Amino acid sequence: MPALTIRTIDLNSDLGEGYGPWVMGDDKAMLDIVTSANVACGGHASDPETMFRTLTWARERGITVGAHPSYPDKEGFGRRRLPIPAPEVERFVAAQTGALIAIAALAGTKVSYVKPHGALANVASEDSAVAQAIVRAVRAIDGKLAILAISGTVLEQVAGDAGVGVFSELYADRGYTPAGNLVPRGQPGAMIDDYGAAAARLLTWLETGMMPTVGGDPVKLAGHSICVHGDDPHAVVMARAIRVALAGRSVTIAPFLR
Amino acid sequence: MPALTIRTIDLNSDLGEGYGPWVMGDDKAMLDIVTSANVACGGHASDPETMFRTLTWARERGITVGAHPSYPDKEGFGRRRLPIPAPEVERFVAAQTGALIAIAALAGTKVSYVKPHGALANVASEDSAVAQAIVRAVRAIDGKLAILAISGTVLEQVAGDAGVGVFSELYADRGYTPAGNLVPRGQPGAMIDDYGAAAARLLTWLETGMMPTVGGDPVKLAGHSICVHGDDPHAVVMARAIRVALAGRSVTIAPFLR
Amino acid sequence: MPALTIRTIDLNSDLGEGYGPWVMGDDKAMLDIVTSANVACGGHASDPETMFRTLTWARERGITVGAHPSYPDKEGFGRRRLPIPAPEVERFVAAQTGALIAIAALAGTKVSYVKPHGALANVASEDSAVAQAIVRAVRAIDGKLAILAISGTVLEQVAGDAGVGVFSELYADRGYTPAGNLVPRGQPGAMIDDYGAAAARLLTWLETGMMPTVGGDPVKLAGHSICVHGDDPHAVVMARAIRVALAGRSVTIAPFLR
Amino acid sequence: MPALTIRTIDLNSDLGEGYGPWVMGDDKAMLDIVTSANVACGGHASDPETMFRTLTWARERGITVGAHPSYPDKEGFGRRRLPIPAPEVERFVAAQTGALIAIAALAGTKVSYVKPHGALANVASEDSAVAQAIVRAVRAIDGKLAILAISGTVLEQVAGDAGVGVFSELYADRGYTPAGNLVPRGQPGAMIDDYGAAAARLLTWLETGMMPTVGGDPVKLAGHSICVHGDDPHAVVMARAIRVALAGRSVTIAPFLR
Repeated sequence: MPALTIRTIDLNSDLGEGYGPWVMGDDKAMLDIVTSANVACGGHASDPETMFRTLTWARERGITVGAHPSYPDKEGFGRRRLPIPAPEVERFVAAQTGALIAIAALAGTKVSYVKPHGALANVASEDSAVAQAIVRAVRAIDGKLAILAISGTVLEQVAGDAGVGVFSELYADRGYTPAGNLVPRGQPGAMIDDYGAAAARLLTWLETGMMPTVGGDPVKLAGHSICVHGDDPHAVVMARAIRVALAGRSVTIAPFLR
Repeated sequence: MPALTIRTIDLNSDLGEGYGPWVMGDDKAMLDIVTSANVACGGHASDPETMFRTLTWARERGITVGAHPSYPDKEGFGRRRLPIPAPEVERFVAAQTGALIAIAALAGTKVSYVKPHGALANVASEDSAVAQAIVRAVRAIDGKLAILAISGTVLEQVAGDAGVGVFSELYADRGYTPAGNLVPRGQPGAMIDDYGAAAARLLTWLETGMMPTVGGDPVKLAGHSICVHGDDPHAVVMARAIRVALAGRSVTIAPFLR
Repeated sequence: MPALTIRTIDLNSDLGEGYGPWVMGDDKAMLDIVTSANVACGGHASDPETMFRTLTWARERGITVGAHPSYPDKEGFGRRRLPIPAPEVERFVAAQTGALIAIAALAGTKVSYVKPHGALANVASEDSAVAQAIVRAVRAIDGKLAILAISGTVLEQVAGDAGVGVFSELYADRGYTPAGNLVPRGQPGAMIDDYGAAAARLLTWLETGMMPTVGGDPVKLAGHSICVHGDDPHAVVMARAIRVALAGRSVTIAPFLR
Repeated sequence: MPALTIRTIDLNSDLGEGYGPWVMGDDKAMLDIVTSANVACGGHASDPETMFRTLTWARERGITVGAHPSYPDKEGFGRRRLPIPAPEVERFVAAQTGALIAIAALAGTKVSYVKPHGALANVASEDSAVAQAIVRAVRAIDGKLAILAISGTVLEQVAGDAGVGVFSELYADRGYTPAGNLVPRGQPGAMIDDYGAAAARLLTWLETGMMPTVGGDPVKLAGHSICVHGDDPHAVVMARAIRVALAGRSVTIAPFLR
């Protein structure tokens, strides 16, 4: 069995994505799997009660917490690219993150990083004005807050250039192109449903630092965290299977930040 | 001319109460009159853009800023007593205040105190569970945050008992009962429309520490700030007249907190 | 086996109670059980997409549709008694019902009745001003719209007095007092979890016209429909069991209106 | 003085654009100027109370009423092009229009036409899928509802092709290109601030059927209505001046529909 190139990794998931009476996924189950929780903060999902409940569960389990801000768009779950200019992005990211920080204080925990959600994450992966807006908001709020960005994106680079702590993530259930980008949803190989395949691919990456791609050679990818999903029962099973596979290979699963 | 018993006073007003494209009052005019601005933070009014604009204007003028949280009720402008239990009040006060704190950082200023709005202020004046919820939220967010309470209320007392910095306010345009409470809206003498009368009454209080009342003897009232309104053109004129009258009597008008 | 006093009955359920990306219960399963669907219309739940989808499923199955308006309160799911005066109730009931009627036209079906939701139903059961507001809204919109009220309530009486078509419902999973009212939630016997017990009790009522009560003699109750719930998997099983039990006793299950 | 080619015209304005406690423009003043009122219905502005109040004022003055649906975007006042596909446009236009129809019944009036607002109007001017979605919604709700479209747009043509009653409007305060389109905002000549100039230009059009353009020859334009604005005091003055100028030239000012 080959030695591991990457011996320690974080598992993160988007949590606290209910709203009022509505639930999304099984947050308690996921909090027993991941080491970092990206908690929705009122943009695409959540409200003060949902934030408080999720943060309390995270604190009870010692899970590291990040804010998960989004375009303000509950009906679209933050998946629509809203035509909002960068200066306004700066303000809503600050407002959402600030709300979560305050509720974390009530729940006896703290917010350690910011990871943008959905369409905002996609735009910040390509558009440096939006990426800079996010970085400015994060830095103004608290100089110690880090950013969790998709590996290889403009946001990762902009945050690094600005001297903000930046960590990068890979997706457990998404295919990669030979250029190191995510295969766009809707194209063949975009989604990986089989968790054996998902786990095998991640182990290859942990062993070699190279990620298998769709229709090409493996690509070198850096990453501090693997994003797993928990919005439906199948996803929870997949996340658990990945954790088990990594543990079986003696990978240390630990948060990238305390 | 009698000497002043109270030589220094703050003037505060509720500001930043627009929403999206809608404006409420003339915030810039009021920021040239008051020394403390209670800035709406998304409960009864405001949004990230409105908060940022208002906070920028306050910073440019060196005005002290407070958060002005409310029951989440834009259509009712925070004037309806919503049946929300105290633990939930704690969470929404934290979320709203936290959002404003983060946007204040972007605007280059800071939030120094919290003053509840409308129905929430009324409930916190009488109901110690709700008053304690507000105090807990304030203390958890930042030990240096103060509370601005209506003089003589349960909130003032609860905050003091908890060791939170607490300041109290009087109303320029509201009548008082001999017991030192506000005459309820709708009763004779509740509202003072004539600004000569409003100013004269405040000067009496500054000279004697005793406030004239409706249908009784003057009552001893303590206060660090006078609340003036700015929601309509008449109110702005009244606020300005009060400032001029106090200045003419050599009262020092200064924020209760820097 | 005793003959049935009541030979035909409707089954109704609250449906379309998702919002944006969030789901509540299994609407398709419930639409295969009930004969009338109370469809949320933007007050406590739903949005144009959710309404359209639910109405399309109802049309495909030939299910009778009612509007299910509520206090405007998604975070509280319409379960909080908001301090909104009766004239405003009239307007929001009209707005919500009108929205559903228009979307029903797009979905190729129609709205036949109105059943208030949650706290609004409770207030309308006791408060004749609110009951009259609902009746006025319903009558103004369409003279052919009926009202589905909880049996024995002020709303049932007010609607009848006004000459509006009115039908009444019983609850499959709620205990009754000897006076014919629902046992308040939180008191012993309020909720019936066992579906054998629930079905047996309904069969007694269909045979005798008398409903067993908590701690007293059976009470005479009139009703055109039985309300079943579908918000969690257990509730769907219970609803299906009740339908099976009624069918096994040769009760005709049919909508009270076409 | 030349004879009039067009002897009768309607004046329309966007009204009821407040929200909760917030006011936009002087609706009562505008209702004394126009003959048709486009009433906001909850998309970019308004709520059941604002709708009811506006519709009541329109009924008292005998003003024809249209629904003024919009992308659901209060914070952006419906001026942002949201990435919402045409089938969803169909549903939200229906929901908003249906709400207004129901409240109009309460207010003792009726909705006679639909005019899309802001970004939705702009998209429907160019994009036939969105135009068709609007037309389908209108036709499904009520076969007698007409559409008020910007003259010369895709929406005007699509509505005509579908056999829906369609009327077209010109803008009093916007410049036209020689091709008959509006000069885009931000370009020279886009906005006409001088009401003498605005009125003179409209009189030329009423006399000749040809509208003066920015940087070219007059263009032949058809129109049943002139849109005037009322969102600020200057706009109300301009609207009144235009009405006076038309009346002075003996133009009959009357609604295009009763």
